[in-house]
Amino acid sequence: MLILPQAVQDLAALFKQLPGIGPRSAERIALHLVQEPPEKVRQLADTLAGAREKISACSLCGALTEQDPCSICTDSKRDPHILCVVETALDVLRIERSGGYGGRYHVLGGKLSPINGVEPEDLRVKELESRIAGEGITEIIVALGTDVEGEATAYYLAQQFQGKVARVSRLAYGIPAGTGIEFADQLTLSRAIAGRQKIE
Amino acid sequence: MLILPQAVQDLAALFKQLPGIGPRSAERIALHLVQEPPEKVRQLADTLAGAREKISACSLCGALTEQDPCSICTDSKRDPHILCVVETALDVLRIERSGGYGGRYHVLGGKLSPINGVEPEDLRVKELESRIAGEGITEIIVALGTDVEGEATAYYLAQQFQGKVARVSRLAYGIPAGTGIEFADQLTLSRAIAGRQKIE
Repeated sequence: MLILPQAVQDLAALFKQLPGIGPRSAERIALHLVQEPPEKVRQLADTLAGAREKISACSLCGALTEQDPCSICTDSKRDPHILCVVETALDVLRIERSGGYGGRYHVLGGKLSPINGVEPEDLRVKELESRIAGEGITEIIVALGTDVEGEATAYYLAQQFQGKVARVSRLAYGIPAGTGIEFADQLTLSRAIAGRQKIE
Repeated sequence: MLILPQAVQDLAALFKQLPGIGPRSAERIALHLVQEPPEKVRQLADTLAGAREKISACSLCGALTEQDPCSICTDSKRDPHILCVVETALDVLRIERSGGYGGRYHVLGGKLSPINGVEPEDLRVKELESRIAGEGITEIIVALGTDVEGEATAYYLAQQFQGKVARVSRLAYGIPAGTGIEFADQLTLSRAIAGRQKIE
């Protein structure tokens, strides 16, 4: 029984490590690529290597960028006194796409997790502290996940910076847009009630 | 509203062209890769370019291979007098994986399709003809799809080579393994009845 040529297997093994690609797709992609025109494959390889070289983390906020500091940190139309604290660089993109935020960001690089050995010094907490002092920050919005670690990290940040900025806030709990309350779990529902808002 | 860094967009656009990868996955993969360690990304780029250079079509049968002729064509344990005619190099892998065939292959490179301008001279028909004469082929098994073009191509090949080999055969029609007859369409069912086999 014939197995795949070694070069195809090697390629499939690497594709399998990418997010959302299973062993079947990885093989299909690898087989597709080795049958493509060589110049097209070379272009993909070059773009790939080039993209990794061009992209770095913004030295201020930690977002992905091609120039440092990033276009958000240097955008004078954005409110320079509010920082939205997120876990990853991708969270910055997610919040930007929502179009609902006009301040700057600070990527923490993770969540506190004593069980996994993630302590404050493993995150960009010290950088946050010096930005708060240096940039005249008046509010930090903690936009972490609502799992145990996210909650613990939010609590830690609030403790840490409560006296140093006028306000430490967090994203609202509530019912996701476009869904019925029958899909909300009890905790979400009770928090949505507690956080109810006046209809203007 | 921030858009993705250009290098990430460029990369995502190329990934989107791969089979089974939609715009969302392409973006997710591109974002994942630009955050990976540079040496890992370089490895993927190199493996990619390398695989395409190493893999070619076997000059005899047309299957994907790293050495020419391929390991099937040079395998002395396989029956050298039977050729299984398939549409693509991937079909060779599919049939090999079934483990049910011990002869050699001939990749046609397509199916006849006058409507799309695919004529016999666009396929590897002449190569098939010279192999039949030169390799002492006694049987060709036409293993093409059962769509109109596959059927027409099978019929053409039968016409063409009926006098030159002892037997031109085709894959059996029938019910797929592991499925109830309630899922078989009428044509498949009537052909499965016509092709019924004695239970030994």
